[in-house]
Amino acid sequence: MPLTQSWIASANDADHPFPLNNLPCGVFSTDELEPRCGVAIGDMILDMARAEETGLVDLVEDPLFDLPYWNDLMEQGPAVWAALRARLTTLLAADSPERAKIEPMLVPAAEATLHMPFVVSEYTDFYAGRHHATNVGTMFRGAENALPPNWLHLPIGYNGRASSVCVSGTDIRRPWGQLKSPDHSAPAFLPSRRFDLELELGAVVGTASEGPVTVDEADAMIFGYVLLNDWSARDIQAWEYQPLGPFQAKATATSISPWIVTRAALDPFRTAPPPREVELLAHLRDTGPMLYDIDLDISLAPAGKPATTIARTNYREMYYSSAQQLAHHTTSGCPMNPGDLLGSGTVSGPERHNRGSLLELSWGGKEPLTLDTGETRTFLEDGDTLTLHGQANGDGYRIGFGTCTGTLLPALPDPYAR
Amino acid sequence: MPLTQSWIASANDADHPFPLNNLPCGVFSTDELEPRCGVAIGDMILDMARAEETGLVDLVEDPLFDLPYWNDLMEQGPAVWAALRARLTTLLAADSPERAKIEPMLVPAAEATLHMPFVVSEYTDFYAGRHHATNVGTMFRGAENALPPNWLHLPIGYNGRASSVCVSGTDIRRPWGQLKSPDHSAPAFLPSRRFDLELELGAVVGTASEGPVTVDEADAMIFGYVLLNDWSARDIQAWEYQPLGPFQAKATATSISPWIVTRAALDPFRTAPPPREVELLAHLRDTGPMLYDIDLDISLAPAGKPATTIARTNYREMYYSSAQQLAHHTTSGCPMNPGDLLGSGTVSGPERHNRGSLLELSWGGKEPLTLDTGETRTFLEDGDTLTLHGQANGDGYRIGFGTCTGTLLPALPDPYAR
Repeated sequence: MPLTQSWIASANDADHPFPLNNLPCGVFSTDELEPRCGVAIGDMILDMARAEETGLVDLVEDPLFDLPYWNDLMEQGPAVWAALRARLTTLLAADSPERAKIEPMLVPAAEATLHMPFVVSEYTDFYAGRHHATNVGTMFRGAENALPPNWLHLPIGYNGRASSVCVSGTDIRRPWGQLKSPDHSAPAFLPSRRFDLELELGAVVGTASEGPVTVDEADAMIFGYVLLNDWSARDIQAWEYQPLGPFQAKATATSISPWIVTRAALDPFRTAPPPREVELLAHLRDTGPMLYDIDLDISLAPAGKPATTIARTNYREMYYSSAQQLAHHTTSGCPMNPGDLLGSGTVSGPERHNRGSLLELSWGGKEPLTLDTGETRTFLEDGDTLTLHGQANGDGYRIGFGTCTGTLLPALPDPYAR
Repeated sequence: MPLTQSWIASANDADHPFPLNNLPCGVFSTDELEPRCGVAIGDMILDMARAEETGLVDLVEDPLFDLPYWNDLMEQGPAVWAALRARLTTLLAADSPERAKIEPMLVPAAEATLHMPFVVSEYTDFYAGRHHATNVGTMFRGAENALPPNWLHLPIGYNGRASSVCVSGTDIRRPWGQLKSPDHSAPAFLPSRRFDLELELGAVVGTASEGPVTVDEADAMIFGYVLLNDWSARDIQAWEYQPLGPFQAKATATSISPWIVTRAALDPFRTAPPPREVELLAHLRDTGPMLYDIDLDISLAPAGKPATTIARTNYREMYYSSAQQLAHHTTSGCPMNPGDLLGSGTVSGPERHNRGSLLELSWGGKEPLTLDTGETRTFLEDGDTLTLHGQANGDGYRIGFGTCTGTLLPALPDPYAR
């Protein structure tokens, strides 16, 4: 599928993340406009509240867009999502008969502030990248026992904390927590010293389920995807995670990119899953290409200094798709809801420079990275700005995710020294 | 503190769960009334929406009670909670000057349907009962390694699934899931064969936090408590829980009792925590009696047959209080919100008949229980009705929780055999 030409010139730039083929969904505000739904097109944002108010976009009886979240649109389901995409494509295409009407509803992206694009109902994080699980397992349990026995049979996941999900650009405060140094016999309450990132893709669930769903049904429930950084305090995690999993180590913050790239926009980039070492059971069996060819990278900029790209990988490296994760999530009868967010798990590739976390890149802190500035890093230092990028590369166009960024602020004084 | 006399005769019965000292908060409906906030008093329910509408209860400018949840009241914070309790006590006391006005707002509980009393924002489950952790640890890892190394230093918890929380009386469907029998080399997708209950108390968080809070601050954030049954598929859990904790095993359902018993009603029943084997770090240190003397029991009734009380225990047996759990929950900066629900962890006591799960009562299925009907149980059978009871025993009165009940329905046909 080639680039679809728009009358908005910047959207036709082959390098622009937001061509007409993309139409990602976000929430923006300006000095004049309260936070509301918007769609990115080139360097502009279409004010969906005005498009709806004036009747240019008219999908269902109730208003859907004069809201600071996309949940109400998502609840409408795939037929309405498709109708919206078709209508916006008509309005914004080069030959649009309604250009004059829609043009006043465009806001320059440079003048807008971006907010959380949806209300996160619940947040689940998976562990579905084989390279990542193998790397982490090798560090903690040795190469012989790297993958847990269940890993090749189901997408391992744990419930995270929805209240900690924040939009790109939000500063992240280095957390305190209970941790135990290997050279101490008792734990202490300290600022995390091994604070890390995890490069992930987040799937946004658009419609609800009441009982178990198949992989195909799950795929149809997914509204779109965002970049996701699952900030992780490795020292807190090491002490707390047995036997019931990560808890406070993952609860400080999870950053997401502000634009939801819809499943429809990504459809041309579907890729087949990897060969299965063991056959998957019926509820997880592959029914088609449900991964995506999305280039991902991580850059790290020390305070006031230029950024270094520290890793490059691709989402097609995952073992389980978000559709498989979502199907597995429903097997017990667990109800899923619009706004549920599923983290893919860290996206690492086969080579060292493909690793999606500092834990892997520095091999548990033993092999420091050297940045372009000459500085070295094992884990994050105060003032570091982390930025994730993502894009699918089409025929003369890109489907970009924008960026997911956050700066690590120093820990506050001991909150319990009062 | 003795019984406070009410002009509602049934509330003065020493055995009644809902005397004037209690005033638990629920949501009810009748043939005529849409679901709304109500307060139980003896055999009646006070229609809070009407009490507010007529000005008899007038706490803040915005209406709080003509809603099918207590979250809006909870968000108002402890001063408004105290004002509400004082006002209701005046209105319903034996010498109330406003009896004639309030009397028409009482609905017989027998005519009401009870609903979820609040919107569960997020749900966290802890593992904070020492007897339970020791029993389970002994079964899985041997007596020498029963308690994990971190257990005496922090309340181990994991995030659960808010969407799976349901009100007492909701039928529970036996789940399917991926599990591996010890005598098979590969997992299979089957209905759970080891479906269990967990007797817990649930703490309802009433106010929000943005950063780490102390144990005292956490205690002040708790609005009240409910009975909680954390239904658990032990065979799914055994296969899935390493390394990131329980997931689908705990996602079928979590039942709660319909009445939130407020912290104020429980205040006379505070008890000191047990002696600490190792000193707790500052953020968890005991600052007062934060457990409660609450008798708890479990009864099991096979389909169409009388119930047997299979366990009796007391909430004072816990090692960590809900206040300590909530303080720990905030250490990383994790934001907590009104409507967050914290499961205490299974409340087991020192003796066999004090155990709060069938896993412990039947010692992993090896020692079947004999019911009064002559039948035996290791785990739950289809048609079994489980009921939790709870009460604090005062001087001539009780603070009752009502019941938390659920009937296990047989598994549906294989959802993936299509």
